[in-house]
This record gives sequence, structure tokens and C-alpha cells, in this order.
Amino acid sequence: MRLNDTHDPARRSWVESANSPDSDFPIQNLPFGIFRHGAVPPRGGVAIGDKIVDLAACLAAELFTGDAAEAARACVAPTLNPLMSLPPRFASSLRARLSELLRDDGQERDIVEKQADKLLVAMADCTMEMPSAVGSLTDFLCSIHHSRRMANGQLPDAFHYLPISHHARATSLRVGGTPVIRPNGQYKAPDGTIKFGPEPSLDFELEMAICVGRGNKLGEPIPLTETPEHIFGYCLLNDWSARGIQAWESRPLGPVLGKSFMTSLAPWVVTSEALEPFRTAAQEREKGAPALFPHLLDAADQESGNLDVAMTTSLVTPRMREEKAAPAVIIRSNLRDMYWTFPQMVAHHTSNGCNLQTGDLLGSGTVSGAADDARACLAELTVRGTQPVKLPNGETRGWLQDGDEVILRARAERPGHVAIGFGECRGRVEPAIQWPAR
Amino acid sequence: MRLNDTHDPARRSWVESANSPDSDFPIQNLPFGIFRHGAVPPRGGVAIGDKIVDLAACLAAELFTGDAAEAARACVAPTLNPLMSLPPRFASSLRARLSELLRDDGQERDIVEKQADKLLVAMADCTMEMPSAVGSLTDFLCSIHHSRRMANGQLPDAFHYLPISHHARATSLRVGGTPVIRPNGQYKAPDGTIKFGPEPSLDFELEMAICVGRGNKLGEPIPLTETPEHIFGYCLLNDWSARGIQAWESRPLGPVLGKSFMTSLAPWVVTSEALEPFRTAAQEREKGAPALFPHLLDAADQESGNLDVAMTTSLVTPRMREEKAAPAVIIRSNLRDMYWTFPQMVAHHTSNGCNLQTGDLLGSGTVSGAADDARACLAELTVRGTQPVKLPNGETRGWLQDGDEVILRARAERPGHVAIGFGECRGRVEPAIQWPAR
Repeated sequence: MRLNDTHDPARRSWVESANSPDSDFPIQNLPFGIFRHGAVPPRGGVAIGDKIVDLAACLAAELFTGDAAEAARACVAPTLNPLMSLPPRFASSLRARLSELLRDDGQERDIVEKQADKLLVAMADCTMEMPSAVGSLTDFLCSIHHSRRMANGQLPDAFHYLPISHHARATSLRVGGTPVIRPNGQYKAPDGTIKFGPEPSLDFELEMAICVGRGNKLGEPIPLTETPEHIFGYCLLNDWSARGIQAWESRPLGPVLGKSFMTSLAPWVVTSEALEPFRTAAQEREKGAPALFPHLLDAADQESGNLDVAMTTSLVTPRMREEKAAPAVIIRSNLRDMYWTFPQMVAHHTSNGCNLQTGDLLGSGTVSGAADDARACLAELTVRGTQPVKLPNGETRGWLQDGDEVILRARAERPGHVAIGFGECRGRVEPAIQWPAR
Repeated sequence: MRLNDTHDPARRSWVESANSPDSDFPIQNLPFGIFRHGAVPPRGGVAIGDKIVDLAACLAAELFTGDAAEAARACVAPTLNPLMSLPPRFASSLRARLSELLRDDGQERDIVEKQADKLLVAMADCTMEMPSAVGSLTDFLCSIHHSRRMANGQLPDAFHYLPISHHARATSLRVGGTPVIRPNGQYKAPDGTIKFGPEPSLDFELEMAICVGRGNKLGEPIPLTETPEHIFGYCLLNDWSARGIQAWESRPLGPVLGKSFMTSLAPWVVTSEALEPFRTAAQEREKGAPALFPHLLDAADQESGNLDVAMTTSLVTPRMREEKAAPAVIIRSNLRDMYWTFPQMVAHHTSNGCNLQTGDLLGSGTVSGAADDARACLAELTVRGTQPVKLPNGETRGWLQDGDEVILRARAERPGHVAIGFGECRGRVEPAIQWPAR
């Protein structure tokens, strides 16, 4: 593990809300996002407790020099792509400097705290935008449990050989919080006829995505050992899925309209550096699985290419909202259960010469584990709607209903380290439009 | 048919090369592209014979006013997206004005011809760039013949109900002429073992794509009757395919690495307006096919939503290049054989609320017909490499070999009209890189 002072679990911030054990954003995290505050154009900031560090304001206050200043200048932009495209040492220098400025026993605490009104804005006063411009979104199928449950226990032939994936639609990505409109489409009704109308089996998928930092040129694969330098950070992803549309359209080319009505990306990007303390070993290969090809096998990746991140999905129904009930956690899984590591996904993705661009996303696929409550989409959790999940207020859900809100969360926790979170990826279901108009 | 003076078959140009019956670019065509000439940044131009009209130079010479001027100003950019995003009347005004300036009996011929050295550049002195920035590339499977041949005579269940498609990779699109590097990847060898190495079954696919003009907002489907306003133009596409990689990776999510090593787009975009004289009826539904859903059925689309465009694929092998032999035409097909019209593809694509952006591409899929020489990829033409195609010099090809160059061409021809062409979409195969490095 490459740990440094920014990971020190003893470090606390003078931004008091960051020291709460429940905060997603302690001083050890410092994730990047694009925020909008007042009339100023959207720009990059860093989360600390319930505040956002306005990097443009910090630059104006001359708090940065060298690499940290260059990184901060790259953040004064409507996307994080300029920052992501820099070599990793730049974001790392900015992280180190911010940690120093924000710690409660820092030498410059007084200077900074005095200007806090200028340098920090309240999250509650901001709206968040898409963190990056995404050229391509590739969604993988990395959970062996999800794969088996979605195919009656069968694994695809290639599952043990390579991380299976498909191109998803980058241009219908929206930042978490954007409502999702129930799609219309063709699906097979229970009586076997094909109908066109509002999707009856609307689902979500709890996923984690990596944001590509520096890309590679077409024709120049990224060796597995170099992949970590190309992974800027991690972000929650909700791969909303219309199961009826998807089932009917998917042979032989895979899902398209079953997913292209919208995909939600969380606003905060947790950096690879912040996640260093939570590295863990790659999943063990199943008994009888073939040996990994050399370009997908590396000792360091096997030892620590995986991440220990607890992930949850919560639901708020319209009735719960009326009752002012807390969101009901219906799924608890962990990213470490993925059968392939993100570095392996990157190495495989580029092995044919395919280029990745700064800002591209690679999604894990549904992060499902072996346990019943680790079935990370409704198709799994409710066995395709036949065994509805029970909510605390007695309601049940086989599939999503109009007005339901889905909240994805994730949190890296390990004894001896301060837990860091990923914020939320929210989306509320709105009714289908009447289509086609008659 | 909405024909106007620009379609007049009697019209000829003072640019003599445009009047040759073999020219792809007579005065009735006037396609748009992005060219690079000398040290000036790439910008928009219009093809006429063997020349390119430099729209920036025409603006400087004050040859345009009103909508035509606004369209020309939009072309002074490194992509055609600004032009494509305007309402169709702008490109149409520019076309009308250019036709007037370039015709041999125009009232302003003398003024323009005198400045020809400034206004026109020789195609031979230019390199062409990608015509547009492509946010998303969707590739369809619209040939019933291709579908059946690729699946042992079986059609996918949904084939008659909707135009099947998949998301392809927009960020590995390159302009025609860019070499294609044979990809490495996993494939099943004849003995049934899985190998990693250079793709043994490299193929191309002869396709046509539409370039989306104005887009639609997420959640707002485009009715079939309005789709023509969203189709800016048409462009040749080569969907290079690594058949071994594709076959092994494709279940259950479709092809990814079998195609993502590169996709070639031709440099010239033929406008919808230029193709008006070549409209033809939609393909008849097969006997017993289900009725079309209302959002995919419109009388005008059935009557004239299809296009009569002859398409060919030619091959040049390294030996042919040495022998200075002409490219060998190995495939002759026609776009009118597609089972779905482009308007139907757009209506289906957006029926779930999916947004299209200006510059997005929708590919037809392999344009194969019923005839043996209309099998528009090698997998079909050579029956998966088992019946190699014979070339004029006695060579044969089951799949592409290193050094082979593939040339796609297309031409709209109809009695009583001047034929217009799409230029070429070329690509030469380069050897695989040694990967992984040992």
C-alpha cells in the first residue's frame, strides 16, 4: 500500500462536520466534483464534511503553488477532464496541500479558517453537475453471482476467460438526482404477445465505475502493470434497466433501449489515492477455472487490485415520503466480490488496441454478492418480480413504481482507518409519457 | 419528392471535372466534409468534381448572404456539428447558393471563376478529417439477408418487430484512410482451445450511416413523421470486425472488442436533400410478418423512406498493388434492400426517450442483399472463410490479410437523374503488434 500523511487516521479537520463518524467526506477522502453555486459557472470543488472547497477561490487566495496550483487551475472548468488528463502527481499534490490546509493542527489553519467564508461553500447551497465529459461508457458483467442469477445458474462460456462487457450509451448519462422517466418500449407480455407501452419491469443496478485519467492511443494497449496510472477515481453508477424491453431486444447484439433511456452517475469522484488503504486481494478463481492469460495476470494486481467497499441500495416510496420514513436499505453488497479487478478490465479493454479517453467510464456491472441481501438489482432480489421485497412500512416491491426513489451509497471501511464514502447516487421514477400520441 | 433547381439534371458546372459521368461529385451532389489544406486549421468545404469549395474563402469574398452565410459561417470549424445543428433550411440555402455560383450558365459565373484560385482547392492537395464529432454510434442489423446468413438461416425473434441494434464505440471512429491495425484478442481455435493472439478472421462490413442533425431531448421521442428533419446526411461506414474475438466475447451482451479496435467513417457527408431524387419505397414486409407498431408505421415512410443507392466493396492486395492492378470489386449491393428505413431506426431509437445529439451516427449494419455478390462482408461472402473469393489475378481471400486495402463506395443512380456518389471509405490492414510483450 502506498500510504502517506493524507491517509493518517489521526488527522482531523477544523471543518467540524468532516469529523463525524457518519460523514462520507472526512479529511482522508477529499473527492472531486463539479458544483454550481449562485450565478458563477459550474467549476471543480472538493468535498469536506458538509462543505465544498471552492478551488477557484483558493487559487485567488494564493493558497497553492507548483503542481498543486496547476491541478487547481485545471479544476476551474465545467468538467474534471482537464484535471483527470494530468499525470497523477498533480491531483496528488493538490490532495496533500488541501489536507494540510484543512487539518485542525495545521500551521496555516488560522490563515485559512479566517477566509473560510470565501473558500468554502455549503453543499446544501449547491447543485452538482456531471463530474466529467464521458466519451465512452463501457459496462462490464463482473459479478459471478449476478451472471448466474440472471441466466438460471448458467455462466457465459467466456466468463472465466475475460471480463465480459458491452458498450453502453455515454450520451444519456446524467448526474445523480436527475429524474428517470419510465421508458416506453416493446416487451413480451405474460400471454406471449408483444406489446408497446410503459415498461412494466423497471429496475436499477447498483454499480461502481472508474473514471479514466490519462488515456491511451488507438493501437497501444495498456499493460496490466500500468493500468493503475490510468485510473483517476471511482464513482457510483446506477444502470437503470427496463427488463421487459431488454429481454425482448437483446438477441443477438445485447441491450440497447432497455438501458439507453438514462444512466445515473454520482457527482463525487473518489480518487484512487484516497482508496489506497482499502485495497484487497483479487477474488479467488473458481475451482476448475482456466488459468488467466498473461495480459490479465500480475502478482500485484492479484494481491491488491481489488477494493473493499461496502455498497447499499435504499428505496423511498411515495408513501414513505408522506410518512417521512427513513430510506429503507434493501441491498448490502461489497465491491470486493467482483470476479475481475478494474485493472484487469482496463487491460482487457485495451488489449485489442482500443483507445480509452480521459473521462471514459468503465462500470463494474451489478455489484452482487453470494448473500441474499447482496442481490444488487430487483431482477435478482425479487426473483424477477415473483418474490417482492418487503419494506418496513409493510409495502412490497417486485419492480419500481412511479414515484419510487432509489439511493445508491458506498463506503470504504477498514479497522485502523477512517471510513470514506462516495456520497449518493439518487434517482426518482417519473411516469412514462403517453407515446405514441394517438 | 421535394425536388428543386439544385436537382435539375440539366445543370452543369464550370468546374469541368464535375461534369464527368464518373464523378462522385457533380453539381447535383455538393456534399460537406472537413478538409486540411496547408497550414490552415481544418475547416468545412464542399466537394465539386476534383475540387473542394473553401467556404471560409467564399465568406471572405462576400459571396453569401442570409441563411447561406450563416450556414457557411457554421462550417468554419473543425467539425460539421455547428452546421448540422442548424435547422435544415440553412444547409439548404447554402446548397442553393453554391449550385448557383458553380453552374456553367449562372449569372455570377465570371465573378466567381476569376477568383477560382482562392475559392477552390484541389482535393489532391488536401487531407480529409472526421466530418463530425460523434457522441454516440449505434449500429443496426437491418439486412434480413445478413441476419439470416450470420445465424445459419435463423432470424432473431425481434427482427420483424423492431430494428435490432447495439451501441458501438464512438471514440474509436477514425476517418477513412486511417490504417487498421489487426487486433489481438481471445478466440476459439479450430481445436476448441481458447487462444490469445492476432485475430485470424479479420473482416469488414459495408455500411451506410446517417449523421444526426438536430437532436432531441432525453425523454422526448421523435415521431416517425418528424425524423427526416433530424437526418442531416449520409456517410459510408466500415464496421471492421474481428470474427474470432466477436464470436467468443458476444454472449450475452454483444460484440465489443471484436469491433472497438477501429471503425472507419468516410470523409464526405451527402445531404438528405441531395438524395431526394433517389427515394424509394420501404422494403415489403415478409409474408407472415407481424403488423408494424404505430410508432414505426407512416404512409410517407412506407412510400419513400428508403433510398436507392448502389454500394460496392473493392479489394487491393499487396500483390495487386505491386502489379498496379485496379481494385477488384468483390461485392455489389444496394441500400434499398434494408428491411428497416433510417426514419424507422430513428423513431425506434428515441421511442424509449433516448436522446440523440447532433453528429451522432446510426449505422445500417451490413448492407447485404439476396444475391451471392451482395453478401457484404467476408463472413457471408466466403461462408466464414471456407469458400474464399477469387480475385482477378488468381489470388484468393477467405479473410483479410495484412497489407490488404478495403475500399467502400456508394452511388445513387436513377434514370432521368445525374448520379451522385459518396466518395470512398478506405482502410489498409497493418500487422498486429506483438502483445503481450514477453
